[in-house]
Amino acid sequence: MNNFIEEHDPTEALKRVFRRHASGVSVITTNDADGNPVGFTATSMTSLGATPPLLSFNVARGSSSFASLSRCDYVAVHTLGERNVELAKRMAGPSTERFIADDWERGPFDVPIFTDTSAVIIGKIREIHNVEANAVVIVDVVESLLGLEQRGLIYHERGYALPGDRLN
Amino acid sequence: MNNFIEEHDPTEALKRVFRRHASGVSVITTNDADGNPVGFTATSMTSLGATPPLLSFNVARGSSSFASLSRCDYVAVHTLGERNVELAKRMAGPSTERFIADDWERGPFDVPIFTDTSAVIIGKIREIHNVEANAVVIVDVVESLLGLEQRGLIYHERGYALPGDRLN
Repeated sequence: MNNFIEEHDPTEALKRVFRRHASGVSVITTNDADGNPVGFTATSMTSLGATPPLLSFNVARGSSSFASLSRCDYVAVHTLGERNVELAKRMAGPSTERFIADDWERGPFDVPIFTDTSAVIIGKIREIHNVEANAVVIVDVVESLLGLEQRGLIYHERGYALPGDRLN
Repeated sequence: MNNFIEEHDPTEALKRVFRRHASGVSVITTNDADGNPVGFTATSMTSLGATPPLLSFNVARGSSSFASLSRCDYVAVHTLGERNVELAKRMAGPSTERFIADDWERGPFDVPIFTDTSAVIIGKIREIHNVEANAVVIVDVVESLLGLEQRGLIYHERGYALPGDRLN
């Protein structure tokens, strides 16, 4: 293992490795018990098989949206593109400021939809699987809304970027 | 919802949306019951909280590596970079050809390590949570190996790419 620098502290190990790992950026929304919109930016959203079509994302159980996720049926899972950097930052900022702009509407099952995103999956929560202070949320895909085609937003090295040239 | 094209077939909905979603690329390895290396390319690997440090990835239960994952304790989770496109393709190809090159060594706990990757997490499988024909694998981070710093490899629009310019 001559090529590698070892990091034996597990917390530091996680942090250092994930800084090098690129991820796609999505925004997940639903409603709270009073019907008000809630949501957050996620970099953990990923497919969980096609038959039946499922997706998963990870969330901290202490987050502002977790109580609403535990109670709701339906969510909107937005994939973000190059036009959505401000949205990605806003939905990762103070929870009271996430829906103050006029860039969302009510969609199927009343879920809040950001209309300038590249695509939205309307999903039904199947299961919330708790792991320590976090949870894996498993969602059945119900339908999708395809928006403006745009290059997919990436989070990498603690900042946002777009995909560059294709490799062969 | 004027801006969107609706797709009501859930399987098609999943496929169309994930084509637009960028993801980081990793390779996960372990050993089979005979001690032979097994592994695969994954685009679902993501963090699951820092205290304690955990990660998750999704895998088809019918895949060639699943039986070994169910039996093993330790895995190596590699984050790939710009030097690893051929590795990403090979580890998504025929399972008999994945370890034929001379680009891996035995690492901690005897797990196979590809030495030209950007980083490796050595993890211990905590739990395999079955969901239909797939599984969410939850892994405790044990330590990491930091390799050659390189731009993180992305899978997007059915091809590999590198992060382009940073956005502010």
